[in-house]
Amino acid sequence: MTHHEIAIEKFGTAQCMTYRDRAVMPPGAGEVAIDVKYSGVNFADVQMRLGFYPDAPKKPFVPGYEVSGVVADVGAGVTSVKRGDSVVAGTYFGGYASRVTIPATQVFPLPKNATLESGAAMPVNYFTAQLALHDMARIRAGDKVLIECATGGVGTLAIQMARHTGAEVVGLTTSPHKKAFIEGLGAKAYTLDEFYADPALAGFDLIVNSSGGAHIQRQRKRLGLTGRMVCLGMSSGVKDGRRNFARIAVAALRTPRISVLKLFDANTGIYALNALHVLRDPVWMERMTRSLVAIDKLDLRPHVGKVFAAKDAGDAHAFLETKQATGKVLLAW
Amino acid sequence: MTHHEIAIEKFGTAQCMTYRDRAVMPPGAGEVAIDVKYSGVNFADVQMRLGFYPDAPKKPFVPGYEVSGVVADVGAGVTSVKRGDSVVAGTYFGGYASRVTIPATQVFPLPKNATLESGAAMPVNYFTAQLALHDMARIRAGDKVLIECATGGVGTLAIQMARHTGAEVVGLTTSPHKKAFIEGLGAKAYTLDEFYADPALAGFDLIVNSSGGAHIQRQRKRLGLTGRMVCLGMSSGVKDGRRNFARIAVAALRTPRISVLKLFDANTGIYALNALHVLRDPVWMERMTRSLVAIDKLDLRPHVGKVFAAKDAGDAHAFLETKQATGKVLLAW
Repeated sequence: MTHHEIAIEKFGTAQCMTYRDRAVMPPGAGEVAIDVKYSGVNFADVQMRLGFYPDAPKKPFVPGYEVSGVVADVGAGVTSVKRGDSVVAGTYFGGYASRVTIPATQVFPLPKNATLESGAAMPVNYFTAQLALHDMARIRAGDKVLIECATGGVGTLAIQMARHTGAEVVGLTTSPHKKAFIEGLGAKAYTLDEFYADPALAGFDLIVNSSGGAHIQRQRKRLGLTGRMVCLGMSSGVKDGRRNFARIAVAALRTPRISVLKLFDANTGIYALNALHVLRDPVWMERMTRSLVAIDKLDLRPHVGKVFAAKDAGDAHAFLETKQATGKVLLAW
Repeated sequence: MTHHEIAIEKFGTAQCMTYRDRAVMPPGAGEVAIDVKYSGVNFADVQMRLGFYPDAPKKPFVPGYEVSGVVADVGAGVTSVKRGDSVVAGTYFGGYASRVTIPATQVFPLPKNATLESGAAMPVNYFTAQLALHDMARIRAGDKVLIECATGGVGTLAIQMARHTGAEVVGLTTSPHKKAFIEGLGAKAYTLDEFYADPALAGFDLIVNSSGGAHIQRQRKRLGLTGRMVCLGMSSGVKDGRRNFARIAVAALRTPRISVLKLFDANTGIYALNALHVLRDPVWMERMTRSLVAIDKLDLRPHVGKVFAAKDAGDAHAFLETKQATGKVLLAW
């Protein structure tokens, strides 16, 4: 018996990934084998296919950080799920496969409100929002929170989670027509231009910055005393539907070095989060998996953008790469 | 009727401050007049006497951030305290005086367990520990916390406050014989050398750094994923009982600029706190004053090092300046 997987055997274009078969192995003690229905596609997968993602394993390897599916088999000692259960799981690589076999601590029963499709769209974005808001910033009721990229996969969850905590949330977008969507999530909405033009939008206890580069210093001025910024990435390296290496280089060069001496004048703090990096640690992976309980508790809804057949994974990458996606991109097995 | 105060009219040596008399003015609406019994002396006072404290008011001015005493009179609308009450208060300058008249929001009833002497020793150290642990780091039960300067005025309070929150605390000292004192406060104790020699002392959720300079980067390596450092100052600029300008310059030069790009690899955060700067904000001053309720709740005990007669304020400065003090230095009126 075999299963299918999509491997990166050499770096290159979207169409250079390999669709291959592998023998199915029984799960070991403490492991769960999942018949995967959907695999989540992340921008980091594109980066590692292009060969410039430092944390990627040696070639050949199977990318993929998140799946949903049905439990096919469990190894000795596993009691948290059983054969036939619908589940979601975080995978530290290996998610682009019709069968994954992983520690039970990474497997979570499919939330009641989720479908297999929406379930696969959840882990990475949810883990990122959870780590940023609750593990780093330690958000509290009454906080004034600014979410820079309020319409993205992480941002939409972050607004919902911050509102559930009792925070007052401002969400930014570059597109005026998306303001109504942000307001529908319970936040006040401004365009980035409106925000920068209005110095009264200040005194934030938490700013979640996504675009990096020069935006970090511009936005830090809007923190209140004892406030904190969490940086999630450098989306300012992406624009006009295309990733552009020159743009990424410029964004990296503009990403500031923060003088600790000047930090004393500001009385604020700054964090940077690479959620996928945190998930390398099995203790954190297990902790994050357990925290998925919040999906039902807070009735969180992810936004699935487009589903591709798994064998068309190259098309899925091309779609993500040119930034056509407005929600999560999935592979269906 | 007059009261006495100690003013900085020109910058210079410890003995150059001026002891002078001023007419007593009645408190305005919302104000409280306090007959001061003790004024706290802080290292920042020494720095501003020497003329290199950027936040100091224009000369001539009266330094001093904290007092204890008895309410002499209250202005219209004040109901929180009444004439004859023993109180402690934070003052944003002006504390070196036998009478201070300040907003009622800065005045707190003397905690039950405090004397007027210990009360005056509390505000600045307590506010600093409170801002660092609760307002910036947002310490939680179960946190692994490292307090670098565990025997200082802030550090001893920080250990007690962190333990009350349910954190596991490690305290450092440069003096092996002070380890028993730290352990008596409920922390594990190591010398700085022992700490640096043992890489297993790592995975901290919070590090409170006091010495600044190169210690910041050495200690940041000991943070766990999503952990945070709060920097309180640059005590590494002081050594061998003397402040030394060359040393301070070296400490400043060694104080790092933190690359946000590298912060993504670390998955941690960094804050810097200038508590006196935060207290310039009346909202924060009031919030901190209200939080003094914790002194009784947690039964916090400050360490009074030495009390000088107010007219000998120059001697008090000289004592602090040569780092002979091991606890709070007070002026008695």
